[in-house]
Amino acid sequence: MPYVKIQITREGATREQKARLIRGATDLLVNVLGKDPATTFVVIEEIETDHWGVAGETVTVLRERAGRPRQ
Amino acid sequence: MPYVKIQITREGATREQKARLIRGATDLLVNVLGKDPATTFVVIEEIETDHWGVAGETVTVLRERAGRPRQ
Amino acid sequence: MPYVKIQITREGATREQKARLIRGATDLLVNVLGKDPATTFVVIEEIETDHWGVAGETVTVLRERAGRPRQ
Amino acid sequence: MPYVKIQITREGATREQKARLIRGATDLLVNVLGKDPATTFVVIEEIETDHWGVAGETVTVLRERAGRPRQ
Amino acid sequence: MPYVKIQITREGATREQKARLIRGATDLLVNVLGKDPATTFVVIEEIETDHWGVAGETVTVLRERAGRPRQ
Amino acid sequence: MPYVKIQITREGATREQKARLIRGATDLLVNVLGKDPATTFVVIEEIETDHWGVAGETVTVLRERAGRPRQ
Repeated sequence: MPYVKIQITREGATREQKARLIRGATDLLVNVLGKDPATTFVVIEEIETDHWGVAGETVTVLRERAGRPRQ
Repeated sequence: MPYVKIQITREGATREQKARLIRGATDLLVNVLGKDPATTFVVIEEIETDHWGVAGETVTVLRERAGRPRQ
Repeated sequence: MPYVKIQITREGATREQKARLIRGATDLLVNVLGKDPATTFVVIEEIETDHWGVAGETVTVLRERAGRPRQ
Repeated sequence: MPYVKIQITREGATREQKARLIRGATDLLVNVLGKDPATTFVVIEEIETDHWGVAGETVTVLRERAGRPRQ
Repeated sequence: MPYVKIQITREGATREQKARLIRGATDLLVNVLGKDPATTFVVIEEIETDHWGVAGETVTVLRERAGRPRQ
Repeated sequence: MPYVKIQITREGATREQKARLIRGATDLLVNVLGKDPATTFVVIEEIETDHWGVAGETVTVLRERAGRPRQ
């Protein structure tokens, strides 16, 4: 009965991509540990880029500096 | 000084129901472990049904398939 | 399909008390929101008193100062 | 490679204050434990006052009773 | 810069299986969302079966009743 | 009434260093947001290096490869 939490920055992940994350994380627990998918939960949390910091700066700032929309 | 986190899918829980969850979880810690309610925190997190997976599928899909009365 | 996490300090909660926390938290979700107990998870995390801080001090220090073994 | 999660009630923290929290938490891990800031994550989660309980009541109610907008 | 937390019951997962969980979860984020593995964290938390409840009972009790050592 | 969780790898942080993390995180919330320290919780979670992954590998492996005991 695993519980998986996936935290990502809110930067445009689509509903289809989220469904793939859920499918993939569930398959991982089933394949590696033989868990029952019926009691495997996966929760995705999207975090605003103003709310996620790396190296002491918000991802918002890091993205602006890199001139890069993506990670 | 307990900390309780309650994650539920966002499917219409009312403000009154959330207040009952907070009251009930606090009472539980007070009654079972003698904790001080003044330092008992309860945090409710509502998760979109697209963001919660069970058995490899999103709750959105599970609800649609079930023709969904249930939560 | 709720997920409840209960964090408490490691100060002697018994196996029976933990079972009551699990039962009580599950009943709460069933009674207030009509959740299915079969997909209600409750996870208890016990935290060392050296690892829990309130008011800027560890619970270890707070307990010593209060001369009180309990909360 | 620390991960720091800061949960606060949603009561008007500004973007600048959040950036200071991220900077400060990162510096703390660097200064106390010598961690590499490049692999230090800080995530801020803002919780609605209806979703945060203390002493068995929501922060919304506590704020109304205190006639006080802030904490 | 995703953060993935995998909570499982402590029931004998090997070091090699944990390494596969970490590899698999990282690959998932890279493949689905194009994330940089260098800033993808995966944290595994093993929870005692006395501390994990499903359907109002501890996994310890559920395992004993099922006469089954595994899931 | 903030709640701060600090996850670090278990690599020899001392009791005194943990107390400094607790003090520092509390001060940060007080100084930046004017929070009341009496209702500011800080929880430190130490994670085994076998249970923490970066770039798809455990920290155990990364440390061995680097021939470096620390981060």
